[in-house]
Amino acid sequence: MLTQKHLIDIFDFSTEEVDSILHLSQLMIKSPSDFSTICNGKIMGTLFFEPSTRTRLSFESAMLRLGGQVLGFSDSSNSSATKGETLVDTIQTVCHYTDLIVMRHPNEGSATLAKTKASVPLINAGDGGHHHPTQTLTDLLTIQQTKGHLDGLTIGLCGDLKFGRTVHSLIRAMGRYPGNHFILISPRELQLPDYMMHFLNSQGISYEVHEELEAVIDQLDVLYMTRVQRERFFNEADYVRLKDHYILTADKLTQAKEDLAILHPLPRVNEISVEVDDDPRAKYFDQAGYGVFVRMALIAKVLGVDSNDAH
Amino acid sequence: MLTQKHLIDIFDFSTEEVDSILHLSQLMIKSPSDFSTICNGKIMGTLFFEPSTRTRLSFESAMLRLGGQVLGFSDSSNSSATKGETLVDTIQTVCHYTDLIVMRHPNEGSATLAKTKASVPLINAGDGGHHHPTQTLTDLLTIQQTKGHLDGLTIGLCGDLKFGRTVHSLIRAMGRYPGNHFILISPRELQLPDYMMHFLNSQGISYEVHEELEAVIDQLDVLYMTRVQRERFFNEADYVRLKDHYILTADKLTQAKEDLAILHPLPRVNEISVEVDDDPRAKYFDQAGYGVFVRMALIAKVLGVDSNDAH
Amino acid sequence: MLTQKHLIDIFDFSTEEVDSILHLSQLMIKSPSDFSTICNGKIMGTLFFEPSTRTRLSFESAMLRLGGQVLGFSDSSNSSATKGETLVDTIQTVCHYTDLIVMRHPNEGSATLAKTKASVPLINAGDGGHHHPTQTLTDLLTIQQTKGHLDGLTIGLCGDLKFGRTVHSLIRAMGRYPGNHFILISPRELQLPDYMMHFLNSQGISYEVHEELEAVIDQLDVLYMTRVQRERFFNEADYVRLKDHYILTADKLTQAKEDLAILHPLPRVNEISVEVDDDPRAKYFDQAGYGVFVRMALIAKVLGVDSNDAH
Repeated sequence: MLTQKHLIDIFDFSTEEVDSILHLSQLMIKSPSDFSTICNGKIMGTLFFEPSTRTRLSFESAMLRLGGQVLGFSDSSNSSATKGETLVDTIQTVCHYTDLIVMRHPNEGSATLAKTKASVPLINAGDGGHHHPTQTLTDLLTIQQTKGHLDGLTIGLCGDLKFGRTVHSLIRAMGRYPGNHFILISPRELQLPDYMMHFLNSQGISYEVHEELEAVIDQLDVLYMTRVQRERFFNEADYVRLKDHYILTADKLTQAKEDLAILHPLPRVNEISVEVDDDPRAKYFDQAGYGVFVRMALIAKVLGVDSNDAH
Repeated sequence: MLTQKHLIDIFDFSTEEVDSILHLSQLMIKSPSDFSTICNGKIMGTLFFEPSTRTRLSFESAMLRLGGQVLGFSDSSNSSATKGETLVDTIQTVCHYTDLIVMRHPNEGSATLAKTKASVPLINAGDGGHHHPTQTLTDLLTIQQTKGHLDGLTIGLCGDLKFGRTVHSLIRAMGRYPGNHFILISPRELQLPDYMMHFLNSQGISYEVHEELEAVIDQLDVLYMTRVQRERFFNEADYVRLKDHYILTADKLTQAKEDLAILHPLPRVNEISVEVDDDPRAKYFDQAGYGVFVRMALIAKVLGVDSNDAH
Repeated sequence: MLTQKHLIDIFDFSTEEVDSILHLSQLMIKSPSDFSTICNGKIMGTLFFEPSTRTRLSFESAMLRLGGQVLGFSDSSNSSATKGETLVDTIQTVCHYTDLIVMRHPNEGSATLAKTKASVPLINAGDGGHHHPTQTLTDLLTIQQTKGHLDGLTIGLCGDLKFGRTVHSLIRAMGRYPGNHFILISPRELQLPDYMMHFLNSQGISYEVHEELEAVIDQLDVLYMTRVQRERFFNEADYVRLKDHYILTADKLTQAKEDLAILHPLPRVNEISVEVDDDPRAKYFDQAGYGVFVRMALIAKVLGVDSNDAH
């Protein structure tokens, strides 16, 4: 049902469609060899107008593991944009070279613009601070795989909740499943923006607001960490006073549940101590692995080659 | 007959050889799956000493669609040239890594130099302002596909006819077919250079010279647009006075034939209004698609794997 | 026996293990088609934190010729390192995208650090001035193929013996085979460092020291040339006085044996005259070809897919 569809915002897809991607991802995890040739003869274009190694390599690994091929560029200095070409002209050209386009662009709304002229499926791999739907799919699959389900969970979101687009998408996506409770942990300056608070209230989604991770870590099933950047604080004094509350250490984890799942969109700078990496609750590198499988499923769906899917 | 041949200038190939490439391209358009594995196990090196996304991706798409593989670099900052290596040394090395080399280089004559030491077929993907033979092959295939034949056509060439290498090659290539008539439309400062005028005269090729597109658009079977860059004019007053004559608009097209084919080597800046894109006579994005097929045919020919060819 | 092993320094592998790679390389040279699909479904990540076209393309060619696939980046501006991510975090992530990592990094010791967190085999493709083990494997295979054996040879090493890491590794690697005699030819300022002289003495390896190539060229079975960079000299007068002694010319070669093998790790600048290229004793471009085969063998070994190996 997703064949030839574009993915710009995670909400382009219904809950049922998202679930079908997660389901296919799980089949691929169980038996990757069943899917290793389904994209034979297909070409994915990776148009990265700004660099993002992790996202690009994750998509490329996904396509290659399906037996497909990849071409593209990894930063705009190698694109025709430097010759004054418009984005839609580039898209109209590259559609002739590929069966699927994955695009990252620094400008918000660029993916929405691009899809208007895309004759092949276009997947948004990040358009400025706007959307990054495959990160959200990755987060959902990681929660599904580590907790076994996507409902009835207490989910802590910690750090910069104001500018972190992945957090906003995750709240909206997880808010579609029943019984989830969100614990929002951030300095006052970096709380969720008004439109997100409005979303939570209007949807009747359960949540609470805290300033310190220590106070609530024992209640969490899932802890989603994000970076707290110094330059996002109004003054240095606040930064120094608060930053330690948003760094996850082995010491803080002694209070957490044994089956907590710790996620992070990566790259990490210092908001999770490296000592935590060896804790079995640390799932952020596994998350990178799930990101490949969920992208494999997405690619198969939009190319309409998911014949091995039980659906 | 083209096996292991280099392609530096379109005139390295006879009319018969060019026709055999166009013929194979057409077979590939009709039945691409017949050719999807003929380059299995072959590797194409794309050595782009200056960036050209469109040309590079077109070649890569072509090779991948034939079942081959690609390696290379997309700008010279990633090449050994930065360590002081000469071009011929790079070529002699890369020949050991590949079965075919596609090279773009900012220096005129570099491709001619490179082929002296190439033990695998070398295709020139642009050497400065000199040659770009696969653009010409693309133009020929586009005309063939849209008009049905390459002879007896009235072909308008509009814009910068002085510096535009693609225009020079196209005139020379189309001049080899009987009955073609060229209408050269440009500001006086940007008319064809003397050696091209000499070529037309000495070959007895029919042509006329105009300064305004409107005056002749109704006669054209093919209209080949190119960019008119502000910096190419002697003074700003001339630029302002003349530039509108070289911008193709929907309004001007009302005078044109119904089966006109509008071509452009791309990227376009503003010399064709975007409103023209929806006109069925606009073929410049299709042209990008034909560029893949003609490169597929060329690659198959020089690698000697065109066994499915009726020839 | 090498399955899932890392390769940081050539001495991570025993002589027996090195010999098994050379043996497999030779089988691959004889019958490459027997090995053209053994890496189907496998992905190699090429993480080049500093550019090195030759080494990167050689590895990519090797993997593609085995039927595998490649993803990665060619300089650090395209890596997550620019977002402040640590090397080990990058490695832990990319392990989820690939079956094998090839890494080049400007910092000495970086490969040793990286392997601590690598869950897939990691091959060092150069870590600063430290190690570059696949260059050494390439040199060994080239000597094996051109001389027929790795023992009982008189090997001249000419040029910068102080800073040239490839020279140090080659001496240590060839010193493991019996009966080899080394002739060290360099200006005094660029002689082998103390630890290497100590190595030769402590292992009882036969060697002699010279300042001029002409004096000894007639004795050599193998001549390994390296670059002598102007900036490595203490003063300009010494440079001007000495440099000609370290440039290989056709004239000097008249004194050499008929079956001499001339090697160079490339890129060359001017230390070998281009007139020498046509001499059958010049093996440095063939060496680039052997570099592909030896990397094919290495990849097959560490991935454990060398089932066609007679071992």
